[in-house]
Amino acid sequence: MGTIQHLAATLGANNCLTAEEDLAPYAVDWRGAYRGTPLAVLRPGSVAEVQAVVRACASEGLAIVPAGGRTGLCGGAVVAENGPPAVVLSLERLNRIRDVDARDFSLVAEAGCVIQTVQQAAAAVDRLFPLSWGAQGSAMVGGALSTNAGGIRTLRWGNARDLVLGLEVVLPDGRVLNDLRRVRKDNSGYALRHLFLGGEGTLGVITAAALRLVPSLKRVETAFVAVPSPDAALSLFSRMMASGAEVIAFELIIRRCLEIVEVMGNGLRSPLPVESPWYVMVEIAAAHPAVPLREMLEDTLAAAMEAAEVTDAALADSEAQRATFWRIREDWPDCHRRHGPSVNADTSVPVSAVPEFCRRVGEAFAQGWPEGGFIALGHAGDGNIHVSLDAPPGMSREAWRARAAGAEAAVNAIAVELGGSFSAEHGIGQSKRHAMALHKDSVALDLMRAVKGAIDPGGVMNPGKMLP
Amino acid sequence: MGTIQHLAATLGANNCLTAEEDLAPYAVDWRGAYRGTPLAVLRPGSVAEVQAVVRACASEGLAIVPAGGRTGLCGGAVVAENGPPAVVLSLERLNRIRDVDARDFSLVAEAGCVIQTVQQAAAAVDRLFPLSWGAQGSAMVGGALSTNAGGIRTLRWGNARDLVLGLEVVLPDGRVLNDLRRVRKDNSGYALRHLFLGGEGTLGVITAAALRLVPSLKRVETAFVAVPSPDAALSLFSRMMASGAEVIAFELIIRRCLEIVEVMGNGLRSPLPVESPWYVMVEIAAAHPAVPLREMLEDTLAAAMEAAEVTDAALADSEAQRATFWRIREDWPDCHRRHGPSVNADTSVPVSAVPEFCRRVGEAFAQGWPEGGFIALGHAGDGNIHVSLDAPPGMSREAWRARAAGAEAAVNAIAVELGGSFSAEHGIGQSKRHAMALHKDSVALDLMRAVKGAIDPGGVMNPGKMLP
Repeated sequence: MGTIQHLAATLGANNCLTAEEDLAPYAVDWRGAYRGTPLAVLRPGSVAEVQAVVRACASEGLAIVPAGGRTGLCGGAVVAENGPPAVVLSLERLNRIRDVDARDFSLVAEAGCVIQTVQQAAAAVDRLFPLSWGAQGSAMVGGALSTNAGGIRTLRWGNARDLVLGLEVVLPDGRVLNDLRRVRKDNSGYALRHLFLGGEGTLGVITAAALRLVPSLKRVETAFVAVPSPDAALSLFSRMMASGAEVIAFELIIRRCLEIVEVMGNGLRSPLPVESPWYVMVEIAAAHPAVPLREMLEDTLAAAMEAAEVTDAALADSEAQRATFWRIREDWPDCHRRHGPSVNADTSVPVSAVPEFCRRVGEAFAQGWPEGGFIALGHAGDGNIHVSLDAPPGMSREAWRARAAGAEAAVNAIAVELGGSFSAEHGIGQSKRHAMALHKDSVALDLMRAVKGAIDPGGVMNPGKMLP
Repeated sequence: MGTIQHLAATLGANNCLTAEEDLAPYAVDWRGAYRGTPLAVLRPGSVAEVQAVVRACASEGLAIVPAGGRTGLCGGAVVAENGPPAVVLSLERLNRIRDVDARDFSLVAEAGCVIQTVQQAAAAVDRLFPLSWGAQGSAMVGGALSTNAGGIRTLRWGNARDLVLGLEVVLPDGRVLNDLRRVRKDNSGYALRHLFLGGEGTLGVITAAALRLVPSLKRVETAFVAVPSPDAALSLFSRMMASGAEVIAFELIIRRCLEIVEVMGNGLRSPLPVESPWYVMVEIAAAHPAVPLREMLEDTLAAAMEAAEVTDAALADSEAQRATFWRIREDWPDCHRRHGPSVNADTSVPVSAVPEFCRRVGEAFAQGWPEGGFIALGHAGDGNIHVSLDAPPGMSREAWRARAAGAEAAVNAIAVELGGSFSAEHGIGQSKRHAMALHKDSVALDLMRAVKGAIDPGGVMNPGKMLP
């Protein structure tokens, strides 16, 4: 272990962890689904130290697993089982916001900055960093960009990729790709940064990013709406979009979610008195205070009600009520996990195919696993529906996994048939490599392998992830 | 010439041009700056025929120069002089709009569709395809995507790249990368399409694209504004953006442009009675008719006037008046060309650096070429200022090119020093390869060459372009 000792001297013993108890938190993902113990956890404090780590590991053939907030759902930041000897390269100490420029609507953050910290730095200069999802209090910039994180507001401002102006990356050979510019137009050669964005750490280590900010929102209106079907939900979505309102969230929720939240959610209740097979949470916003947002929402909902797309709707009358609406959505993953075992998918389809997707998945579940509970909830405005199949009451996780093993594959196949993706926003990591092998176009896989071979010929960066 | 004869049999003689008079239009770019005669012009009518052309040429070692509307400014679609024997592969017959889905806000267009045709197809279903620039009546989808075209509205909706959901590409080995999906979220491996977008045809031939549409604009307000300086213009821009209005264009124009337009522009006159060293054209829009756009614009301009950022402003009172304002901007390139010779650049800097950029370029020109005329005009909201140095009256093009040869390099160096790009929206092609060699980070160039080698190992795709 000469390399690790050498790195301990470079980084300081505190930042080169090798004791079993120090490695433990880094040896498992937060869901407990993936385990893999690194030889060491290295925590460089500067870009030069990241370079030193990469160079030392590469020269010894040690694999490098970059890690940030480690909130990913696919095991991308955990050492792969049965893989080559590996270290975890944690970016947590690279956590400076290097620059905020309100005039420029941009901010430069290091990889270890927590997403919420970036949001707060933007808010402090009356700007909005729109990337937002449940784990934003722990997730870090490097991981968000490496997985091209999505979330609630993709509909309006795109995925993580769309919010990046420039990147700084340590390459597998230890050199730095310095493309940390804050320009909005640059057509000087291949768009290299898009390889590292969503590259899941398999091509290099993102150390910092220039991020795009947008004008802060001055007004927001939120409605919780009962709809008879996904078809009606989609008609409502089209109506909202065509109205010209700035739709910043459009979440589809199946009845069963509300029932589970009402049981598990510590007093959370449906905002609507009626029972409905499906619900929608819609949020519109304006950056200018003179936009008559409430009337716009009311007018559109009234027209949708007349067209029988909507059966009932509650509009948040206060920030507190709005927060309650959102708690239903945001507490869902935790309520769901505590409620019982389930098999889950992360699929997307073209927005117009959402109703057919929901129908076909429901049918496949009813036929193959009639004892299971069908969950469909997600970012309908992006076509990104998270489907789950819940175990019947009392069944163990292991038993249900065995029984319902084919459910995820069935959902993935339906999504792909409808022109969609088997991995919408969580990435591939370890958990979807089999799906990658099954569903990804073979020409695309060949190209990906060629790119990987060209940029990381030694295969040191995050082996056993993404590429099947 | 067995290959060409074979292709003539495959495509039909009409679509395999070899006569000198048939080749002539394809042997020069529209500005007359680049010349190169192909062995043949091949015009496939289907993706399968594109594959046949690529396979036949690759197997014979003939270089392939993809071409569309051939409105590019950098010579990318013309055979390189002193390069290997080459054919032009024209996508002009692949001009179907395969699908329009209003509900999905998407459209699938083949590479040979003219941009304006795409705009019209979107408008026919009450949607907007926002990509827009002067050549949109001739430019085609394939070229727009291969050069990642920018234009007037990048500020609001991004470059061409940002409007693409999926691509179909014929690779250098003749296989098809079928990634023509219309999903908005897809994290299944490397974002390959971003290599071909802006790849200038050096990695493959884009044959079709799934494009993103947005809600159509219901109201637009346009102002022509006199400002004392670029600094004041930038303050106005910050003010407009921070107001929360949806700014869709923000063009900075130096006084000299107006003077030239008034001489060359067939009756065009400044909309303002005052003379001002600088002007701004600003346009705000709303997709919802209830947004009080006029008041928003008037209020912000009034505040800017009080802050001495604006000295006078004319608001368009009719669509006709709005069109007149825009003619000043849109007729500018033609007026400028007819006015006399000039040396031109296509630079971008961070938005906040626009004033310093203008000041430093003005100083460099005044010092090095005091007899020249300083032009600065462009998309200030993107930091993309087009700088020119005009010849003094009566000087020939050749004499001025010789005298002012260093001017473009001086502008590029200033842009790069300020954290900007020497190629903002036109691409590299042939004209900026020297700048690429001079200014591009050597690590980035190495990576680009590695990617090129991995995807086009035979070097058949558009040699002599982009990479130095």
